[in-house]
Amino acid sequence: MKNPPALEQLIDSLRCLPGVGPKSALRMAYYLLQRDRKGAAKLGNSLENALQVLGHCTLCNNFSETPVCPLCTSEKRDTSQLCVVEMPTDLMMMEQTQSYNGMYFVLMGRLSPLDGVGPKEINLDKLIKRAQDGALNKGQVQEVILATNYTVEGEATAHYISELLKTRGVWVSRIARGLPMGGEIEYVDSGTLSMALLGRKKL
Amino acid sequence: MKNPPALEQLIDSLRCLPGVGPKSALRMAYYLLQRDRKGAAKLGNSLENALQVLGHCTLCNNFSETPVCPLCTSEKRDTSQLCVVEMPTDLMMMEQTQSYNGMYFVLMGRLSPLDGVGPKEINLDKLIKRAQDGALNKGQVQEVILATNYTVEGEATAHYISELLKTRGVWVSRIARGLPMGGEIEYVDSGTLSMALLGRKKL
Repeated sequence: MKNPPALEQLIDSLRCLPGVGPKSALRMAYYLLQRDRKGAAKLGNSLENALQVLGHCTLCNNFSETPVCPLCTSEKRDTSQLCVVEMPTDLMMMEQTQSYNGMYFVLMGRLSPLDGVGPKEINLDKLIKRAQDGALNKGQVQEVILATNYTVEGEATAHYISELLKTRGVWVSRIARGLPMGGEIEYVDSGTLSMALLGRKKL
Repeated sequence: MKNPPALEQLIDSLRCLPGVGPKSALRMAYYLLQRDRKGAAKLGNSLENALQVLGHCTLCNNFSETPVCPLCTSEKRDTSQLCVVEMPTDLMMMEQTQSYNGMYFVLMGRLSPLDGVGPKEINLDKLIKRAQDGALNKGQVQEVILATNYTVEGEATAHYISELLKTRGVWVSRIARGLPMGGEIEYVDSGTLSMALLGRKKL
């Protein structure tokens, strides 16, 4: 006794989603077919539409429906700063702080050789070009701010990029590391504390 | 700064999958667009195809591409027994035992009033008709075997169905409850053990 081919194919296709194994795929397929056919149809359409419409901004590499995204075309942004983040979510977090008004570059990942993610996959040639050329001749990038995560991979990525850019004479900085807001020394891990010490500032 | 509309729509659509919240949906959308566009296209097609092609078997209520599924049309099955299971996976587990050769009825769920699943949602009218009418006039159903799970909902479902069918003069049975294969009395929970005691058989 086997599932009908169309169902098997759906289960197999659902497995391309990250974090979805054979059991979850089965559960999802049953759920969609049994309880939410409308949702399934909507999902099918959204996928098709997104694949057709969405590309990458030629400047910041973020997802965009236009060749250059609204943020990159905005007249209000400071084109002298370029902030490098791993994912679009990070960009949105940066925007929420309302303390940065420069441009962005979204890597769409981080260096992770074990997962097969090398310099090519995170668009480093595009970043180098962007860091050197300036945006749409509106002005050269003066400073590249590396805002990758403080994970092992994020750190490695930041190090790699800084080496690449420094040899090309670009001014590179890295966001600070230290105690979080409301952080108590008693409860913070020793790695963070030692970094906070090393990164102390003269008052 | 917001995501492009096509991306927002995709994220929203992915949330119809069971167990997928806003964060997972975001992760899935990024992953599909960035790392697996082929997989996304395949998923879109599979969804469309499955929705178009898959319906329910008029006899056993399982997913099927034909009005009556291959199992129900098979000449080799014993039409006098009808095994009621919750989901297609349960049917497949039953088949794997190779100790049952009768027909099936798949409820596609279980009674669960809190989730809005009542007798209608699990196709009980269809089951009653099936239990009384016999399959394709090949022979009347002599016995209905309830093989719903031994969870609270599965038990309630079995109880409800047995009451419905017994009043209509159908012979109803329930699969046995007791120690599993290789089960040790020392480690089994007391509920299972007391059920094993109550369900003891004369040798």
